Amino acid sequence: MKLVDMKITEFVDVLGSDAPAPGGGSASALAASVGSALTMMVAQLTIGKKKYVEYDELMKQVLKEATEVNQALLEAIDKDTEAFNQVSAVFSMPKETDEEKAARKEAMQKALKLAAEAPYDIMTLASKAITITGRAVGKSNVNAASDLGVAALNLKSGLQGAWLNVLINLSGIKDEAFVAKYKKDGEALLQTSCDRADEIYQAILEIV
Amino acid sequence: MKLVDMKITEFVDVLGSDAPAPGGGSASALAASVGSALTMMVAQLTIGKKKYVEYDELMKQVLKEATEVNQALLEAIDKDTEAFNQVSAVFSMPKETDEEKAARKEAMQKALKLAAEAPYDIMTLASKAITITGRAVGKSNVNAASDLGVAALNLKSGLQGAWLNVLINLSGIKDEAFVAKYKKDGEALLQTSCDRADEIYQAILEIV
Repeated sequence: MKLVDMKITEFVDVLGSDAPAPGGGSASALAASVGSALTMMVAQLTIGKKKYVEYDELMKQVLKEATEVNQALLEAIDKDTEAFNQVSAVFSMPKETDEEKAARKEAMQKALKLAAEAPYDIMTLASKAITITGRAVGKSNVNAASDLGVAALNLKSGLQGAWLNVLINLSGIKDEAFVAKYKKDGEALLQTSCDRADEIYQAILEIV
Repeated sequence: MKLVDMKITEFVDVLGSDAPAPGGGSASALAASVGSALTMMVAQLTIGKKKYVEYDELMKQVLKEATEVNQALLEAIDKDTEAFNQVSAVFSMPKETDEEKAARKEAMQKALKLAAEAPYDIMTLASKAITITGRAVGKSNVNAASDLGVAALNLKSGLQGAWLNVLINLSGIKDEAFVAKYKKDGEALLQTSCDRADEIYQAILEIV
């Protein structure tokens, strides 16, 4: 069963169980997915309202872009757990002969790279959604200001949580160039987008 | 239909729709609920492991307390939207005669107080869960360190998001003593628990 097809109660239940997956990666994709959905809501509560007519086109664009990112983030909930499961699968590969050991090592490196890339993709998507959300601040329905703030909070949490999942997987990867690239790009993405999300939250605190 | 009985896809869909509820309040309860579930998972991945035998009792306590808070947070997802719906219901009350106007005003004040209390309860629960999560840092399965970090991130996001929802409802409340009390208590809770959540995240960054 796909995680996104579970009821909220079922998902939280399996998350809180002793099964190592789903874990923080899928939870971070869910947080970012919830965040982008709130941006969609705020856009829809603004579009067509007389008071915000000058922002109508902008908010239609925000809605369109947030919807695209939201769909990708929903898919990322399952993708992250699938990547984790591939790492787990390697643990049950045979390791008797030298050939088996070599094959197992190679499979692990490949699986770990995919398991680092999955949360990195969540970071990229959350970062995009933060930019989109920022464009709505001060130009959207003030009655939904708190929702826009919660959007930014969930997107930031999703971004930082995905980063922890990138890091924990990078720690097992031997390919130094791969590790260096993801660390450098990830840190840059994290810095810029966390600052942007904090600015949104602060701006909303002034409004509510 | 209760929100927690919806599939993840359905919940995200209705959240992203033009319906004003569910919104940021329920989303914040979900974030905190996901956070506490991750703490439960990390506790369960530690209990009974030889390497962590000295923390076995502590982690059993963490599991018990996190489970209790998690249940209350799951219930808070629906409670927040119900409180919001009561505010919405007041808008459709008649306001022709002076008596109707007075009754409407009184009903609104009552509904707004409940709508401020609902996210305040989420703050209290998220704050408890952050304390519980903090006790597991450095004393739980290191392979699940990123999950513990994501727990803290989701709890902090839930706490701050609930705070925005407290504030937006307080802004319509005329009872100055009520407003002053919630602002003072909320700010204190926010400060202490955000700092604690940040400490957990920083500690996890050192581990992963």
